[in-house]
Amino acid sequence: MTDPRLPHVVILGGGFAGLYAAKGLAHAPVCVTVVDRRNHHLFQPMLYQVASAALNPSDIASPIRSILRKQKNAEVLLAEASEVEVGNRKVRFSDGGCLQYDYLVVGTGARHSYFGHDEWEPLAPGLKSLEDALEIRRRVLLAFELAERERDPVRRHAYLTFVVVGGGPTGVETAGAVAEIRRYALRRDFRHIDPGEATVMLLEGGPRLLTSYPTELSDKAKRDLRRLGVEVRTETMVTEIQPGWVRAAGWTIPSQTVIWAAGNTASPLLKSLDAPLDRMGRAIVEPDCTIPGHPEVFVLGDAAAFAQPDGGTLPGICPVAIQMGQYTARTIASDLGGRPRRAFHYWDKGQLAVVGRGRAVADIWKLHFSGFLAWLTWIFVHIFFLIGFRNRVLVLIQWAWSYFTYGRGARIITEEMRPPPMPLTADCPPEEVAAVSR
Amino acid sequence: MTDPRLPHVVILGGGFAGLYAAKGLAHAPVCVTVVDRRNHHLFQPMLYQVASAALNPSDIASPIRSILRKQKNAEVLLAEASEVEVGNRKVRFSDGGCLQYDYLVVGTGARHSYFGHDEWEPLAPGLKSLEDALEIRRRVLLAFELAERERDPVRRHAYLTFVVVGGGPTGVETAGAVAEIRRYALRRDFRHIDPGEATVMLLEGGPRLLTSYPTELSDKAKRDLRRLGVEVRTETMVTEIQPGWVRAAGWTIPSQTVIWAAGNTASPLLKSLDAPLDRMGRAIVEPDCTIPGHPEVFVLGDAAAFAQPDGGTLPGICPVAIQMGQYTARTIASDLGGRPRRAFHYWDKGQLAVVGRGRAVADIWKLHFSGFLAWLTWIFVHIFFLIGFRNRVLVLIQWAWSYFTYGRGARIITEEMRPPPMPLTADCPPEEVAAVSR
Repeated sequence: MTDPRLPHVVILGGGFAGLYAAKGLAHAPVCVTVVDRRNHHLFQPMLYQVASAALNPSDIASPIRSILRKQKNAEVLLAEASEVEVGNRKVRFSDGGCLQYDYLVVGTGARHSYFGHDEWEPLAPGLKSLEDALEIRRRVLLAFELAERERDPVRRHAYLTFVVVGGGPTGVETAGAVAEIRRYALRRDFRHIDPGEATVMLLEGGPRLLTSYPTELSDKAKRDLRRLGVEVRTETMVTEIQPGWVRAAGWTIPSQTVIWAAGNTASPLLKSLDAPLDRMGRAIVEPDCTIPGHPEVFVLGDAAAFAQPDGGTLPGICPVAIQMGQYTARTIASDLGGRPRRAFHYWDKGQLAVVGRGRAVADIWKLHFSGFLAWLTWIFVHIFFLIGFRNRVLVLIQWAWSYFTYGRGARIITEEMRPPPMPLTADCPPEEVAAVSR
Repeated sequence: MTDPRLPHVVILGGGFAGLYAAKGLAHAPVCVTVVDRRNHHLFQPMLYQVASAALNPSDIASPIRSILRKQKNAEVLLAEASEVEVGNRKVRFSDGGCLQYDYLVVGTGARHSYFGHDEWEPLAPGLKSLEDALEIRRRVLLAFELAERERDPVRRHAYLTFVVVGGGPTGVETAGAVAEIRRYALRRDFRHIDPGEATVMLLEGGPRLLTSYPTELSDKAKRDLRRLGVEVRTETMVTEIQPGWVRAAGWTIPSQTVIWAAGNTASPLLKSLDAPLDRMGRAIVEPDCTIPGHPEVFVLGDAAAFAQPDGGTLPGICPVAIQMGQYTARTIASDLGGRPRRAFHYWDKGQLAVVGRGRAVADIWKLHFSGFLAWLTWIFVHIFFLIGFRNRVLVLIQWAWSYFTYGRGARIITEEMRPPPMPLTADCPPEEVAAVSR
């Protein structure tokens, strides 16, 4: 049981930032409450593997409670924070409850941004949560099913065109994964269509893919994606999405399945902090990751805009969140020990993105490499960081299995069939004896 | 590609009956279409393991397409049959399509029956599909989360009371599984509640559990469940279910989580067959599993009422469905070969039910046994019948892991938090500085 006389650290969000802050405080004289509206921590870098039906949700998620089970000074609360009263040091929840804090750590992450076109969201879901991943999986698998029974070639073509918007790591990884399902996993499953003929397009508004990587690796990723059969189009900004088609750079692309990986916006909770926000809705933080005038309020990870010497901000990637979480725990401990604060410095270990089966690009400690070696590095780093031992072993087995069999293990659609966005076959005319599917 | 000049066998439902019928026709001169409104075959006997968070959905489900991938004369259609026109030999789908058949095989299974109280369904979900299992899992896990932050002891008690209605195999297995989660898997996860103190009740209207088993095994199951801490109450008919409580045999039991395992009713599609139905909505079939006057329409498995010499009907269990499917394939083949039909005979190999970790009851070839040996038999039989090799290996590993660690691997809630059925904590009064959870 936690001791109410100790300083209370409230952590909003059980992502990488929040969890590393909580774990870093295990031996500090505080009590910690981690609040999340979901019961699980999610290993987001592998989310696209759930969307592409290679992994199960529980392979990349662990209950936050289990992760903190042994940490005596921590408790976990399933609740949604709706407002922070910075003046009263109080967090309010959407169900009417509230919590008093001495330190607040905000690691509430980001959602997708549709650049003012929120009406696109139902047509082009993004990939941030397990629910998103399962929805994308459902749409991709359903598109093949609907194509299989569609007689009209134009509509069938729209079912078999998959558009991924955004050429960052998520977009590249998702496009590669969809291209592989189509080419290998589903190859012999259908009778009237050849899934291998489906079109996968990756649309990027800027001049190249993976802009945070060196140019040579962007080019390499593009080549690898093309080899997988992905049509990569750069300088192609999406201007409209409607049921059944996408308009981009003057083109109209008929497609039933659009996946959004283009922009981020921080959680709306940050607005109640009364701190300056940047254009992506992130709190502009001081060198110690706190908001101006409130050294007791830390904002971390994707929710923070941390200025860099070159005028930019730290990217919204997992190592930044982890290091900020660890830094925050150390800073709170030194506050309580009466020691002065030191500024946060990000130690850049590099970046990695998977392009497809056995292919990746890596930019690590100024070394640029790609191909199978980069892919093995990716597997090693990601398995190593997966929280929870059981998951590591099982994920490795599933991957090995998938890799050697070209199979997709988790190809289950677990929702009632919803009406497709376009009418299916017309009513069967009475004079027609042939069946719709023969 | 299938040949349209061959007789067309349309199979409704990719459960055990439908799938075994389809596979049995692999070398017959027919073309086969399997229609299901889901894309997967479900290994229903292990569904309660998904509900109790021990297994993932994809561990017990395989895409029907993958199962029939190599069968050249079969195709699979994702569609919902809405009506059979027996006179025209035509099946209509809810989206307007239709199929012409020469033989029809109906294996559409059963849904839960609430004995005229359909308003109970949202309060007490049953366990028939993966969606049902995930919903029950969500409710069970959420109940512990809500109890953890509930200050009012009466409401906390209602969150920590789980009621399973129905003492058949599904009810017994589910009650045992919930009792084990509570006792082992969640034991150290919470700070304000002790999950081990949660109450699990199994209510049965009749005089004993597992009525299809010999009395000694019913007694054994009851003893084992009690040892696990399940309160078993026989002759306790549920008369009312409301949000927050259940009334049964004059008692009012405060409970937020009720699971229905009490009665079955066959799929409503059967009404359009114009055949006599029994009180559970099943088609009363002839000795060759067809409906009167239509030797080309077979009704199998849970959808069929097949009369037995003792005046009863065959039970709705998986071996009956499998044998009926195999029989139907043989019968269609002998029709086409001009040979006379033979009546269906069920070969009773016995029955098995799991009571908890390492405990089961078995009634096999007149041998009655229970305990660890019965449990090993259960594991062996079920793993053996799991369709798809990958699943078998992974399920075995997951089970072994669960068994030795007392863990529950798949404890992830994958839906947005829905409003709980009862209001949560009241608004935090301004004078109160203590937080809701401290």
